[in-house]
Amino acid sequence: MIKITFPDGALREYDNGTTPYQIALSISEGLARNVLAAKVYQEVVALDFPLNADTTLQLLTWNDTEGKAVYWHSSAHLLAAAVEQLYPGAKFGIGPDIENGFYYDIDFMDYPISSDDFPKIEEKMLEIACKRQKFERKEISKNDARTLFVKKNNEYKVELIENLEEGTITLYQLGSFIDLCRGPHLFDTANIKALKLLNTAGAYWRGDQNRKQLTRIYGISFPKKNELDEYLLMLEEAKKRDHRKLGKELELFTFSQAVGAGLPIWLPKGTELRERLEQFLKKVQKKYGYQQIICPHIGNVDLYKTSGHYEKYGADSFRPITTPQEGEAFFLKPMNCPHHCEVYAMKPHSYRELPLRYAEFGTVYRYEQSGELHGLTRVRGFTQDDAHIFCTPDQLKEEFIKVIDIILYIFKVLKFDNYTAQISLHDPEDNTKYIGTKENWNKAERAIIEAAQEKGLQPITEIGEAAFYGPKLDFMVKDAIGRKWQLGTVQVDYNLPERFELEYIDANQQKQRPVMIHRAPFGSMERFVAVLLEHTAGNFPLWLTPCQAIILPISEKYLDYTYEIKNKLEEQNIRTLVDERNEKTGKKIRDAEMMKIPFMIIVGEKEEMESTISVRQHKVGDLGSMNPDGFVNMIHEKIIDELA
Amino acid sequence: MIKITFPDGALREYDNGTTPYQIALSISEGLARNVLAAKVYQEVVALDFPLNADTTLQLLTWNDTEGKAVYWHSSAHLLAAAVEQLYPGAKFGIGPDIENGFYYDIDFMDYPISSDDFPKIEEKMLEIACKRQKFERKEISKNDARTLFVKKNNEYKVELIENLEEGTITLYQLGSFIDLCRGPHLFDTANIKALKLLNTAGAYWRGDQNRKQLTRIYGISFPKKNELDEYLLMLEEAKKRDHRKLGKELELFTFSQAVGAGLPIWLPKGTELRERLEQFLKKVQKKYGYQQIICPHIGNVDLYKTSGHYEKYGADSFRPITTPQEGEAFFLKPMNCPHHCEVYAMKPHSYRELPLRYAEFGTVYRYEQSGELHGLTRVRGFTQDDAHIFCTPDQLKEEFIKVIDIILYIFKVLKFDNYTAQISLHDPEDNTKYIGTKENWNKAERAIIEAAQEKGLQPITEIGEAAFYGPKLDFMVKDAIGRKWQLGTVQVDYNLPERFELEYIDANQQKQRPVMIHRAPFGSMERFVAVLLEHTAGNFPLWLTPCQAIILPISEKYLDYTYEIKNKLEEQNIRTLVDERNEKTGKKIRDAEMMKIPFMIIVGEKEEMESTISVRQHKVGDLGSMNPDGFVNMIHEKIIDELA
Repeated sequence: MIKITFPDGALREYDNGTTPYQIALSISEGLARNVLAAKVYQEVVALDFPLNADTTLQLLTWNDTEGKAVYWHSSAHLLAAAVEQLYPGAKFGIGPDIENGFYYDIDFMDYPISSDDFPKIEEKMLEIACKRQKFERKEISKNDARTLFVKKNNEYKVELIENLEEGTITLYQLGSFIDLCRGPHLFDTANIKALKLLNTAGAYWRGDQNRKQLTRIYGISFPKKNELDEYLLMLEEAKKRDHRKLGKELELFTFSQAVGAGLPIWLPKGTELRERLEQFLKKVQKKYGYQQIICPHIGNVDLYKTSGHYEKYGADSFRPITTPQEGEAFFLKPMNCPHHCEVYAMKPHSYRELPLRYAEFGTVYRYEQSGELHGLTRVRGFTQDDAHIFCTPDQLKEEFIKVIDIILYIFKVLKFDNYTAQISLHDPEDNTKYIGTKENWNKAERAIIEAAQEKGLQPITEIGEAAFYGPKLDFMVKDAIGRKWQLGTVQVDYNLPERFELEYIDANQQKQRPVMIHRAPFGSMERFVAVLLEHTAGNFPLWLTPCQAIILPISEKYLDYTYEIKNKLEEQNIRTLVDERNEKTGKKIRDAEMMKIPFMIIVGEKEEMESTISVRQHKVGDLGSMNPDGFVNMIHEKIIDELA
Repeated sequence: MIKITFPDGALREYDNGTTPYQIALSISEGLARNVLAAKVYQEVVALDFPLNADTTLQLLTWNDTEGKAVYWHSSAHLLAAAVEQLYPGAKFGIGPDIENGFYYDIDFMDYPISSDDFPKIEEKMLEIACKRQKFERKEISKNDARTLFVKKNNEYKVELIENLEEGTITLYQLGSFIDLCRGPHLFDTANIKALKLLNTAGAYWRGDQNRKQLTRIYGISFPKKNELDEYLLMLEEAKKRDHRKLGKELELFTFSQAVGAGLPIWLPKGTELRERLEQFLKKVQKKYGYQQIICPHIGNVDLYKTSGHYEKYGADSFRPITTPQEGEAFFLKPMNCPHHCEVYAMKPHSYRELPLRYAEFGTVYRYEQSGELHGLTRVRGFTQDDAHIFCTPDQLKEEFIKVIDIILYIFKVLKFDNYTAQISLHDPEDNTKYIGTKENWNKAERAIIEAAQEKGLQPITEIGEAAFYGPKLDFMVKDAIGRKWQLGTVQVDYNLPERFELEYIDANQQKQRPVMIHRAPFGSMERFVAVLLEHTAGNFPLWLTPCQAIILPISEKYLDYTYEIKNKLEEQNIRTLVDERNEKTGKKIRDAEMMKIPFMIIVGEKEEMESTISVRQHKVGDLGSMNPDGFVNMIHEKIIDELA
């Protein structure tokens, strides 16, 4: 008999050699139907993996990321199996699961392939899946594996095999399709009930531009048809909300090849939006005792050698900037922290001054491969809403609470209602890889955990996920269409204070090393605006939106009254536009709705006579007639409400 | 007889060979006493220069910059003559006039020289000056000159002579001191009546670090004793106002060797000040139809090749930044204009959209020699309050008027009451060196002149001082202690629109090239804050000052009431500090005066009982008791007044 411990702590005994599937079945038939794979200690295994010793066991279903991964990896094999039947002679590269779905890189030889071929392939995939075919694992020697794929004429797999160590190699067979694969896989295709091929892309073999370009086919699959439908709907919606598309439509930002790929240019409306966000955060941070500073965008390379960033970013990034002065070189800053450490180090500090909180909207530059650039989310230059808190170890908890307060306030005000937090702690079994004393680590980790508890966060705690220089707290938000984004990292750092030899004098006149906290609630202005666009689809909260109201005069006869109203609103800090065009009011309303302007104000003869305005709200409709002061009050109350 | 034309247009006839001195004497004895040199056409000559042809003539006095230059150059010779007498064997390098005074680089051989020696040298200088000694001009062959200075054992002058062309060389003799010199000089020493040696500095011969370091002695001289006294008083005052000193005392900015020389770091109080200035200008500019944009701090080198800046800044500046991508290189931006041209070029424009005014607080980087760096006025990284106006040629005048309005408003609000303007026009005798059509130049120059006239500027007009790409308008302000600073340049540019092939569609559907105006009223945030510090000695206008009021509780018993008042003031946007220290009120007041805080609020038992505050104004004194609302109103009224 072996002892099996479940995630909830329950312990059961089974016969030696029992499989996870049998265990699932012993619990309930429903579970057995839904279980996809299992996790034995840290390793994911197939359902028919015989358990021969006491172990912890987690049964993985569709609700587990690792369960989905196995499911989609198996779906990739299913895709390949279908392609092999439809396009005899096609050669297969690699086919992994990805965050959402899977892909397979295929050399289609002379077959011209496009998304027009998808229905046929999907049909074949479903046909195979319906047969409940097994994913059969086979062990084979390296030599036999090579022989097999040489015979199959597949130079790609042969190359992969060459790079494997001598010894047993595993293959997986699905019907007649045999693949070189480490596994694990689903037991059979029974659970793959709904699928869709999404798009194709060119992909160089092994990512090398000098090698053959294969056809990458992306796909997604689900155990239920309605889940696929929902996903496809979400994709449609995501396409509409794509920040690159909205950014262009709303004229927020742009890129210029002449300036450089991945270097965003903020257009007037985007600049206003960004400035409003910055001012908002500055105000919040001021309340919490932050001090703004401004540092240059370059620094002597020695500064980054001290900080360790030169080693990290030196080789693959923007190269150093030399000058006419022999031996002098500067580095475009990839991070703001070295400058902030210098500011701290500039004069001696007493414990009475701590915590010191230096904040900067600091633009940093990091070289990303051009293929990895993506709108505002993956750029080569971006502005962090950065701050570094220098405090005593005892102040960590209080500072964490304050940072969490700021982050949660931001989430609330920007309507990210759905978020989770994760605490990354050190690995107690490997103390060697961490900098800083054990005592300080324990203090910091306790501080984070307690702070999170007190703020009611219910965080996930991940052991061993801490950086070598300190534990951290991360936030993930779910956007309006269910996608997850990482926003807001709070990172303890014992490393930089050490490298920069930062000090303060404690109450006993002793020199002590401060702890440093890095934190950026937005992350970067670029990425945050992208996420905000995709989350809100451009329907920003009233306090933030570039234009809060637009006045639509019924004819040019009412332009005087229109501008009287506009001035009144602007005096009360309501950002107001006028649609002066000689268009029908219906058209003006439609265009204002398109521009997502929260309030439309229609003025004509009646309004001018009565000194009133007629108000329409975006997506809501007619609010009727009101006097301008009433409108102003309504807007101000809504904003106070939003920012409360 | 020859015809002499004077600057006022008057024309007189004189005998051939008449000297400027004789002409001055023919006008008045007073003028003859004060005249220092003369300008014949474009050339400055000595007073005994015989005039042999019709010419224009300007008699130069102490009121003319060129008159002062001759005076100070002669004073440098006087210094050398005195040194030669006091330190036999001392060798002389070069000794020119400078903006304020003169210097001489001297190899004192084994004499140890310091400012302790100044009184002795000054005495000797005055002794020589009193003798009304002549500055005698001598012509000599290059060979004889070499022989003379070899005999004098002066390898410096010998080296200078070696580098001269063959032909006649001029020497100037003052008593026994003979110098190699092109001249011109004063007639004699009679006018040098007051002088002062100011300081010494090491100066490498010919600026070459590998050559001998000579002793540079700086001095100043005046025709009147009271002028010297005033100048020395101004120097004292300037020292107190030195922005580097004030910047440190007020904790506004700093530099870090680890980050890099000339790269300013704005500390919290400086950042607040700068941000307030930026917000102020943004608001003004918004009113004038400017649109803020934000561009990256780097751009592809090709962008700067297109703009021509690569050619200008490429060799002597920060070198290009290469990347892991072969052949790719970026350039740290030395100017914002190329980016703004790219933004303009990003979509087609109709004449109806013009003028387009793109503004950016854009940080640029230019490499300055480390010896030339000076506080915030000469740096390697600075943020321009930049904007580029793209308009039709016909809109130039209107745009100039608006830009002048903004600049004059800034001068008013920041209390620069004393300013002059200069218009730089093209040289009508050399049309070849200018880009753009003659018609456009005339239009632009007329626009500037008319705009300046309409704004009542009474500008100086300088023919031939325009840049090759367009005419410009410059402003000079005189600060509180009489020093001049250049602030606010408005520059027309026909070049960049050409290079970037910018276009708009005119009313006839024809493609046209827009004109571009560069303008930066502050110049840069760094330089402007430096000038503002030196102008105001840190006593900023109330609207701008970091801390507007400080509350001084008489004892800690009144802390509750103190914070009640503080909150009340902060709610009304009055920036308020509290001096909580356990110090006597007299000491707190003195410290607050030192910190130049405009208002001190004293609270004690009486104030708490009566719900009042006692107010003192910086440099004014007791304003008596008032209620908090009254104080708030007073502050707000003062600010409205300042910004009106």
